[in-house]
Amino acid sequence: MAHHFEFKQIGVIRTPYTDSAPYQPVVNDEGEFRIVLQREYAQGLADLETFRYIYVLYFVDRLTRTTVMIEHPAWTPDTNVGLFASRSPVRPNPLGLSVVQLKKIVGKSIFTSGLDVFDNTPLLDIKPYIKDLDSKNDANYGWIEKLAGNKQHLLLHIMGIPHGY
Amino acid sequence: MAHHFEFKQIGVIRTPYTDSAPYQPVVNDEGEFRIVLQREYAQGLADLETFRYIYVLYFVDRLTRTTVMIEHPAWTPDTNVGLFASRSPVRPNPLGLSVVQLKKIVGKSIFTSGLDVFDNTPLLDIKPYIKDLDSKNDANYGWIEKLAGNKQHLLLHIMGIPHGY
Repeated sequence: MAHHFEFKQIGVIRTPYTDSAPYQPVVNDEGEFRIVLQREYAQGLADLETFRYIYVLYFVDRLTRTTVMIEHPAWTPDTNVGLFASRSPVRPNPLGLSVVQLKKIVGKSIFTSGLDVFDNTPLLDIKPYIKDLDSKNDANYGWIEKLAGNKQHLLLHIMGIPHGY
Repeated sequence: MAHHFEFKQIGVIRTPYTDSAPYQPVVNDEGEFRIVLQREYAQGLADLETFRYIYVLYFVDRLTRTTVMIEHPAWTPDTNVGLFASRSPVRPNPLGLSVVQLKKIVGKSIFTSGLDVFDNTPLLDIKPYIKDLDSKNDANYGWIEKLAGNKQHLLLHIMGIPHGY
């Protein structure tokens, strides 16, 4: 019964990350983050610039291991969590999702805040992030909150911000 | 240069919607909303129940028209907006994304608040929705806010809530 579906590349994500990338978007990371749509889709960017945030959906194309149902997040390797309770990129479908700030659109390029993907990652979709529909004030941290230790420290990990301790 | 990628069904989304579905999730809609994973992925649901919200990613399998780069949203048909500035399901890649409340997990079934998809929609992925990472307090409404008229009325449309005016 396992049906298969074909998706196509509609653009490319350019980032400064060639050899390593953060686990999550780093809002103020240095360097240029740019999504470049293929010419035939550029007209579809009209009005997108009115949004402060967007969803970026992409194909995770540089995986080096196979999918497991129990993950050990890289920033807390002694913890076992179900794959679907993690944001691990190694999933049955290597489908990446990031929420980023939209800075400006120039032609077929969208300039954004830091994106947590390698340079040249294939783009699958862009959607507007709409207040109320997507921003849930009563969201929680799930199992992350239950981990012992410094919450501020955990947040640095969640946000993907490099830090020395 | 257009690369193609194959994704596979990992489960099915059961909803009360067989002939029509709302444009967006209706939080308190009647009926049962249940995501059923295929047996081989059930173990990956461990710890997911600690999250209040989840992202549901799915293949939009009941489209009846072709993709256009300028959309006319069904609830405001006189408005022209770029496809990527809309949440139209008719996109280059028919990849659906919904944020819903997780109610409970029983075996390989996730019970949720209202999901805006037809019954038997193929599931592609589940991700935890994590406060701070995904909930952006300063998000906006983009072009929707610029439309003339009653903002409360617009919000009913955005939230997909049926209403009589």
